[in-house]
Amino acid sequence: MAKYTIGVDFGTLSVRALIVDVADGREAACASFDYPHAVMTDQLPSGVPLQADWALQHPQDYVDGLRAVVAESLKRSGVDAKDVIGVGIDFTSSTSLPVDQDGCPLCLKTEFAADPYAWPMLWKHHAAQSYANRMTEVAFSRNEAFLERCGGRISSEMMFPRLWQIAVEAPEVYEAADRFVEAGDWIIHQITGSRACSVNPASYKLFWTEEEGYPSQAFWQELDPRLISVTSKVSDELLPLGSCAGRINACGATLTGLREGTPVSVTCIDAHTALPAAGVTEGGKLLLILGTSAAHLVLDRDKHDVKGILCMAKDGMMPGWYAYEAGQSCCGDHFKWFVDQYIPAAYEEEAHRQGLSVHQLLTAKAAKLRPGESGLLALDWWNGNRSVLMDSELSGMFFGMTLQTRPEEIYRALIEATAFGTRVIVENFENSGIPIREICVCGGIAKKNPLLMQIYADVLNRDLRIVQSDQANALGTAIFAAVAAGTENGGYSSITEAACAMGGTGDTVYQPESKNSRIYDMLYGEYRKLHDYFGRHGNEVMRRLKLI
Amino acid sequence: MAKYTIGVDFGTLSVRALIVDVADGREAACASFDYPHAVMTDQLPSGVPLQADWALQHPQDYVDGLRAVVAESLKRSGVDAKDVIGVGIDFTSSTSLPVDQDGCPLCLKTEFAADPYAWPMLWKHHAAQSYANRMTEVAFSRNEAFLERCGGRISSEMMFPRLWQIAVEAPEVYEAADRFVEAGDWIIHQITGSRACSVNPASYKLFWTEEEGYPSQAFWQELDPRLISVTSKVSDELLPLGSCAGRINACGATLTGLREGTPVSVTCIDAHTALPAAGVTEGGKLLLILGTSAAHLVLDRDKHDVKGILCMAKDGMMPGWYAYEAGQSCCGDHFKWFVDQYIPAAYEEEAHRQGLSVHQLLTAKAAKLRPGESGLLALDWWNGNRSVLMDSELSGMFFGMTLQTRPEEIYRALIEATAFGTRVIVENFENSGIPIREICVCGGIAKKNPLLMQIYADVLNRDLRIVQSDQANALGTAIFAAVAAGTENGGYSSITEAACAMGGTGDTVYQPESKNSRIYDMLYGEYRKLHDYFGRHGNEVMRRLKLI
Repeated sequence: MAKYTIGVDFGTLSVRALIVDVADGREAACASFDYPHAVMTDQLPSGVPLQADWALQHPQDYVDGLRAVVAESLKRSGVDAKDVIGVGIDFTSSTSLPVDQDGCPLCLKTEFAADPYAWPMLWKHHAAQSYANRMTEVAFSRNEAFLERCGGRISSEMMFPRLWQIAVEAPEVYEAADRFVEAGDWIIHQITGSRACSVNPASYKLFWTEEEGYPSQAFWQELDPRLISVTSKVSDELLPLGSCAGRINACGATLTGLREGTPVSVTCIDAHTALPAAGVTEGGKLLLILGTSAAHLVLDRDKHDVKGILCMAKDGMMPGWYAYEAGQSCCGDHFKWFVDQYIPAAYEEEAHRQGLSVHQLLTAKAAKLRPGESGLLALDWWNGNRSVLMDSELSGMFFGMTLQTRPEEIYRALIEATAFGTRVIVENFENSGIPIREICVCGGIAKKNPLLMQIYADVLNRDLRIVQSDQANALGTAIFAAVAAGTENGGYSSITEAACAMGGTGDTVYQPESKNSRIYDMLYGEYRKLHDYFGRHGNEVMRRLKLI
Repeated sequence: MAKYTIGVDFGTLSVRALIVDVADGREAACASFDYPHAVMTDQLPSGVPLQADWALQHPQDYVDGLRAVVAESLKRSGVDAKDVIGVGIDFTSSTSLPVDQDGCPLCLKTEFAADPYAWPMLWKHHAAQSYANRMTEVAFSRNEAFLERCGGRISSEMMFPRLWQIAVEAPEVYEAADRFVEAGDWIIHQITGSRACSVNPASYKLFWTEEEGYPSQAFWQELDPRLISVTSKVSDELLPLGSCAGRINACGATLTGLREGTPVSVTCIDAHTALPAAGVTEGGKLLLILGTSAAHLVLDRDKHDVKGILCMAKDGMMPGWYAYEAGQSCCGDHFKWFVDQYIPAAYEEEAHRQGLSVHQLLTAKAAKLRPGESGLLALDWWNGNRSVLMDSELSGMFFGMTLQTRPEEIYRALIEATAFGTRVIVENFENSGIPIREICVCGGIAKKNPLLMQIYADVLNRDLRIVQSDQANALGTAIFAAVAAGTENGGYSSITEAACAMGGTGDTVYQPESKNSRIYDMLYGEYRKLHDYFGRHGNEVMRRLKLI
């Protein structure tokens, strides 16, 4: 009898469950649920207004979503709950909430319902930016080791700046909170009763390491004496990825329809689950995740000083390995920017006549161009630069226009620019001592746009292997669940073993064409020159333009 | 009884006649005529095919056009031919043709009708580029003084490279030609019988100066012995602007319907006639002519070494003055590039709903932005850079895009870029010792786009005075005709006197707003930095991209 695990992927606007055959990763069914409250940026459900940069969510949406997607995926697949040997949760991060001793969200209690600080803060809640900046300054002045693990800059998307803001601006919430927990840990607590948390968000969003734990008391003391006991308000029981966080209890069984006792794997940051889904469980392989933005994950046995990456943590993504993450802040987003606003009616009509989307029409036209033919070059910084420059003040650039320049040429130049940006990141890893022998790609764009993949292969001058699953996050989470279940239940004994059986890349491989790669080598040389001139303070015009 | 002159303006695709009251420049009527053969780029009328870069015209179109527009303008105005005291011709240049001893175009003779080299070559005929390049090299190696008067580079739009090409590739045409004449001089010959030519195209397109005449025999000998007598094939009787080239003869009277004996002023390059039309007849005033491209004309008593301008000639535009001309190769052209290809259907619909053109809608939206608000900056080099870099290999650049960047912001950045490019030219004149106290502007854009004019005023930080006439070329030509007529016929004794009465700027003055100018000073500083970095070999990426 086949055995299954369920990966539940909590995203920004919806949650998805994927039910997967443990033997081979075959996807039996998928179901999704849109959060009724989506992202609250203007007001609380009660009408209390929110300030700019706030982004909250409703915990009831998580619970309702979990119930709906597990039930629906079981129904669609026809799988019996008794054949589900494990379930896993991945979640956006840091998305966190204050809870009482019983794990009840403060925002669901009458006395805090009207207090915005008591609600779950979504990863893209940026209200604590000034606290994050100040934390960076103090950490820098104290030469704190954790600063280098987060690329030298503490982000307002991390948990501690928010806790500081709450301690200062809403001390009643800070005091009342027994703990502040990642939403992924919280939902597991709801269905298992276990307060154990995952090492993964703790490593990447709370600076935790096995050797040093959380940032020191001396640091908090210098930052603000109110934070002297802040680490007592975050989890002290951290389990590695692939561990069993707990088992479905009676309450969880009622909610999910799964058997009581079903193992639940510890939570993982959503993007990080793509590693086992892609079969990347060892060094030498880069996982490229292409979406509105792009992420680049790579493992290595050793600790390296890599400049300009987003974060680095030991054991954080894969036990026994240092995991490094870089990122591009703009990928699909700037193709969308161009297509939404700069495509004339004639192209829309042509696409309509041919039964294509505008993206498809532009791709078809751009595919007819040879590398370098347009004479265009772009810097892909429409949303700043994450890696390797780490400068959000940078902006986009187009270069080489003539009166003959056509929209498909600009579209292709945008694709090439993101490919060049990726090459900078790959070379940066290699120059820092992290070998990259293979590149795997996942994300919707990777499957939808063969031209883009071919350009990436040509620019990077390497084979690109495409991850099979359309639901890499949920699949990776299902893989963790199979490890948490263990061999005794029909699962696996290690992430590597599970990923090898259930994940991996498919037959689609993009190979570089050497005549294209030679031309792109030249164009990349030009890109690098502009990249360094405008990005490394050869000319700070982008920064000055924003100031003006 | 009012007296009139007629200015006949031969353009690239059509000819216009403007009939003007000599007392005050009031425009009595205008008529135009499209050349039936337009520009011949693919084949001769007989079907003989033309190579790439060829651009020929049909001389019969000029004759038919002159007949039509003079008759129609007289008719529309109700002016009696006996009250027309003078007529003038301006023409594109160098547009030239080979003629026999009687002034008959070789192309109209049976034996040469099928020979492309026998036809009038339009200014934008570029087939002699390699000859022009070689001439530049030889002139440079010989340190010829004429080279500095044409910006250091001989253009294929000048007459001598074409004569050389004809001498080499079509010696039968070269031998049969009694002379090669500017089309403006030729049409005057047709209606007056006079072979006198204008100093104006001779100065700007044939390197003629009063002191030195045409380039020396030694130069021609070194270039190609076949050209040893080339200067005997161009005019040796040159008259200054405002002179009477001849009087309408019987044949001319039949053709035009004007009285026999009516004075005809010597021809002028079309753009140069805008000077008297704008009332610019002395130093300290810059005339800015805005069209698809832009030209910048200024007079000075003295000879200055001005780098990066298109041409300089003594007496060429105004007797007694050195005239300097700079240019921008892209102005209206790149607004059109953007509007034609990069405006989404939603904007077209919005414009339609509001009864506006897309240009007008974008202008209205762009007008709501404050200087510097968008964070964008562009280099206006879509068609290369004429002044002051003189590099046709340069290309356009946009800078500072974010995901929030909207079409109207890009549109405004394009306008600002052309204004910055103009400021570079103005500063270059001033730094070379040519004072510019006042700026006059003519051209369709100047009257149609107040936002553009205000941006120019703010960027240049000077008052801009707009030329009243919509037909500045034809008006300037009518002014020359009034001088050719002389006081004895009711005309004027000098160009200055005539221009003062008949030309000049109107009441529309754009004044800089100091708060905008301060911001534009900063943006201009950034523009200059990019201009010099990419234009002055700080980074030759544009050139290399074109090579790739």
